[in-house]
Amino acid sequence: MTLTGNMLIGRQAVAGRGTAIRAIDPATGAVLEPAYPGGSPAQVEQACTLAWEAFTAYRETSPAARAAFLDTIAEEVEALGDALIERAVAETGLPLARLQGERGRTCQQLRTFARTLRAGEWLDVRVDSAQPQRQPLPRPDLRQHQVALGPVAVFGASNFPLAFSVAGGDTASALAAGCPVVVKAHVAHPGTSEWVGRAVARAVERCAMPEGVFSLLYGAGHEVGIALVSDPRIKAVGFTGSRSGGLALCQAAQARPEPIPVYAEMSAINPVFLFPAALHARSEALAEGFVASLTQGAGQFCTNPGLLIAQRGEALDAFIAAATGQLEKSPAQTMLTPGIFDAFASSVGALARHAKVRRVASGQPGDGPNRCQAQLFVTEADAFLADPALQAEIFGAAGLIVQCRGAGQVRAIAEHLEGQLTATLHLDEADHDAARALLPTLELKAGRVLVNGWPTGVEVCDAMVHGGPFPATSDARSTSVGTAAIQRFLRPVCYQGFPDALLPTALRQGNPLQLRRLLDGQREA
Amino acid sequence: MTLTGNMLIGRQAVAGRGTAIRAIDPATGAVLEPAYPGGSPAQVEQACTLAWEAFTAYRETSPAARAAFLDTIAEEVEALGDALIERAVAETGLPLARLQGERGRTCQQLRTFARTLRAGEWLDVRVDSAQPQRQPLPRPDLRQHQVALGPVAVFGASNFPLAFSVAGGDTASALAAGCPVVVKAHVAHPGTSEWVGRAVARAVERCAMPEGVFSLLYGAGHEVGIALVSDPRIKAVGFTGSRSGGLALCQAAQARPEPIPVYAEMSAINPVFLFPAALHARSEALAEGFVASLTQGAGQFCTNPGLLIAQRGEALDAFIAAATGQLEKSPAQTMLTPGIFDAFASSVGALARHAKVRRVASGQPGDGPNRCQAQLFVTEADAFLADPALQAEIFGAAGLIVQCRGAGQVRAIAEHLEGQLTATLHLDEADHDAARALLPTLELKAGRVLVNGWPTGVEVCDAMVHGGPFPATSDARSTSVGTAAIQRFLRPVCYQGFPDALLPTALRQGNPLQLRRLLDGQREA
Repeated sequence: MTLTGNMLIGRQAVAGRGTAIRAIDPATGAVLEPAYPGGSPAQVEQACTLAWEAFTAYRETSPAARAAFLDTIAEEVEALGDALIERAVAETGLPLARLQGERGRTCQQLRTFARTLRAGEWLDVRVDSAQPQRQPLPRPDLRQHQVALGPVAVFGASNFPLAFSVAGGDTASALAAGCPVVVKAHVAHPGTSEWVGRAVARAVERCAMPEGVFSLLYGAGHEVGIALVSDPRIKAVGFTGSRSGGLALCQAAQARPEPIPVYAEMSAINPVFLFPAALHARSEALAEGFVASLTQGAGQFCTNPGLLIAQRGEALDAFIAAATGQLEKSPAQTMLTPGIFDAFASSVGALARHAKVRRVASGQPGDGPNRCQAQLFVTEADAFLADPALQAEIFGAAGLIVQCRGAGQVRAIAEHLEGQLTATLHLDEADHDAARALLPTLELKAGRVLVNGWPTGVEVCDAMVHGGPFPATSDARSTSVGTAAIQRFLRPVCYQGFPDALLPTALRQGNPLQLRRLLDGQREA
Repeated sequence: MTLTGNMLIGRQAVAGRGTAIRAIDPATGAVLEPAYPGGSPAQVEQACTLAWEAFTAYRETSPAARAAFLDTIAEEVEALGDALIERAVAETGLPLARLQGERGRTCQQLRTFARTLRAGEWLDVRVDSAQPQRQPLPRPDLRQHQVALGPVAVFGASNFPLAFSVAGGDTASALAAGCPVVVKAHVAHPGTSEWVGRAVARAVERCAMPEGVFSLLYGAGHEVGIALVSDPRIKAVGFTGSRSGGLALCQAAQARPEPIPVYAEMSAINPVFLFPAALHARSEALAEGFVASLTQGAGQFCTNPGLLIAQRGEALDAFIAAATGQLEKSPAQTMLTPGIFDAFASSVGALARHAKVRRVASGQPGDGPNRCQAQLFVTEADAFLADPALQAEIFGAAGLIVQCRGAGQVRAIAEHLEGQLTATLHLDEADHDAARALLPTLELKAGRVLVNGWPTGVEVCDAMVHGGPFPATSDARSTSVGTAAIQRFLRPVCYQGFPDALLPTALRQGNPLQLRRLLDGQREA
């Protein structure tokens, strides 16, 4: 089997009729075959039409059938074997082991949504029984559950070519909810996308799912993405990427005659707060943990800890010295794309030239193109508070340490921050009171708050929140990782006075799906 | 006690510094005292500042404390006695009994949210326990619950001066969620708003809630509302009203540096489908039910059944004849405001002049100003499908019957409809197959689907959905009536690796609130 450069529109593998993209191996700069011609407006429309047609049948499939479908996608992704990983390495410059791990995570994610579907909590079934004798008016029988929103446009992310791309978290949660998916592949890894797309297509066929439940498009510029989000048959959008990209999609979605929800995970600097007792007790260990988290994967994570806040003093000096030592040893790593490398180099250069910022460490220089040389900067709280530009995300392994004169300035920094995906606290028992004073602020700023851990590494589970207030995401009420992500693609419908024979299965009197319903105000055991 | 014309900004009763409004008794046209000067930009800002300051303490109050607060608001509203109802009658032209009923509903709604708070399901607690031995990486302890979004701007609705105004559903659900509320009173009933506002203020004092948890503003034009929605301290908006008003608020909310969610319940014509067997069996009873629902409260309900769809034939002719007879007997009723009456008269006039629409009945003429004379029109499916203007909402007792040539046209109408709050089916057992074919379409169009009932009368309960796809609302994922309405003002936060002492109460190891948590994938009994 070889890569073809074809899009997948429903059951058809077809060449795009628009401008072609080609992947680049960022480790060498080599251009990779084949070419991936982008979708024409008619091809985008065709994918959306098929998705809409598939929606009728797909949303009526049983949770068990969709669970089997997700499990089958996982199997088919695994069956791609080394070809997938080799292409992903070539297209992203990410290490083999990381991509093998990411494939495991992607398949586990699909299977987690399968389990979630079978458990049925996501249907949120509520029943208020009829009270025909009630005065002054009888109460009718009322039942509520969640139904699928409609076809979803999913945008592949540059930094997770598997776990947040063609069969990643957005696709898995949308398919779980009963929504067909049209994926716009990320320009940086079309080959990886084609492999995974073909795996999904095989699962569609094996599970006899309706044609159009999945399509995969390429596109060079913004046209395909904007056309997709503007198509009236698309009812929601999942996106992980830059702030400007996310905001452009939000704008397109709002400009439609019928606006639709956009779940865009956009930018964060993921502040880390070091409290005095912890910093005093273990500045070296903290420095080691910080640099490891900061430089992991060349810092190309949404949850990369780009900002560290602590009070001035000997302990912080020791931390900075240790972090400097660690970071200077850190090897250069290939970044995902030449564009990402250029943006990193330019942002780091601007920060280094900033009058109020001091560079304290640089990692090992690179020996090839697109190599990320890690960077560590220090500034003062006053300077940070005075210049909003200092909290702009730098995508890559660059950290800024903010030195504060006291707890009051630490708090001022916390209050000054934009919305974040995560906020991290390192503390000992003696720091509890100080942490308790800061937590209410952080809870309003971030989707996830960590104690004595590092924000990179996002667990796929029920309790995860990978989200947060604007501009971390466009919708703080949601998460894009974890089982609650399914809720993004659902809406409630109430059925009043229905005969049992016409009710959706989940709502029938006999509770055939054996759900724990909210029945007359009580949760069923 | 008399009305003062004062706004309530936190603990202060203050006169507005902007243009004044005065209520008009729509039954007589008389202008009512006192004048209600509108808020100045500085006063709007002051209310928002106080709300933000209150948020810190208010969101940390226990669910039990907020429940007691809501119960106290209900008590204080009841303690207003006849003065409230008399003023509401004068300001709205609504009958005494209706307003007494609406007061009961309003207080029941507050108490329902109090019960919901105590039950704790709304916190959606999820716990994934640490797995320190897991390979290749240990799993940290992860816990999730819901936290309040922040201060909420609530806009009073013209047609529910009590149940969807100052202490109505939006206010009750926002306060339940832990969000301070700044209410912009509807211009049509400032006196009713002042009475209820004072009741809420007394409850704030009795329950020792922080100042600023509630403020009440007046305003003549759009300025106060737009200023409120644009204020950076406001984090969500609840609105019930016109499509143009709702869309203007959505636009203002999206134009902010930090966009915020708007829950606008805007417009619907609430289609009713009469199936052949039911229509044949009981055309007269259906006609009676339809006209009763259409004319109730002069048709001034969001869920008023403004559209009726059925197949042509003798049974429909009999239905139309019976409905005509019923409607012609229906007495004229005072509408809420001169503006609403003028809009109704103008829309009805335009429909009567429409080349493809036939007026079949008019209700009794009025004997004073602003009297709604009910109207019934008939058109053909082809005409309805050809002219989108025919599905514009007419706020008031005006119904349009669409005659179809067969089941295919009925389905075409259903597919042609915009998003709706409700869709209603009247059917007998012989109609089940036909209904089953239509239900998937209706489920995508409406928030609530009814069988053999009428859409007016919206139960406040767990299973209710008063919402629906655009343009029925600006956010189909939510409901503005029923206990699920609290979810609009919440967002999830995840706590990773927290020592028990720093966790929010709901998430502590010992489960002190005795919640049924989702613990390691299983719902606790």
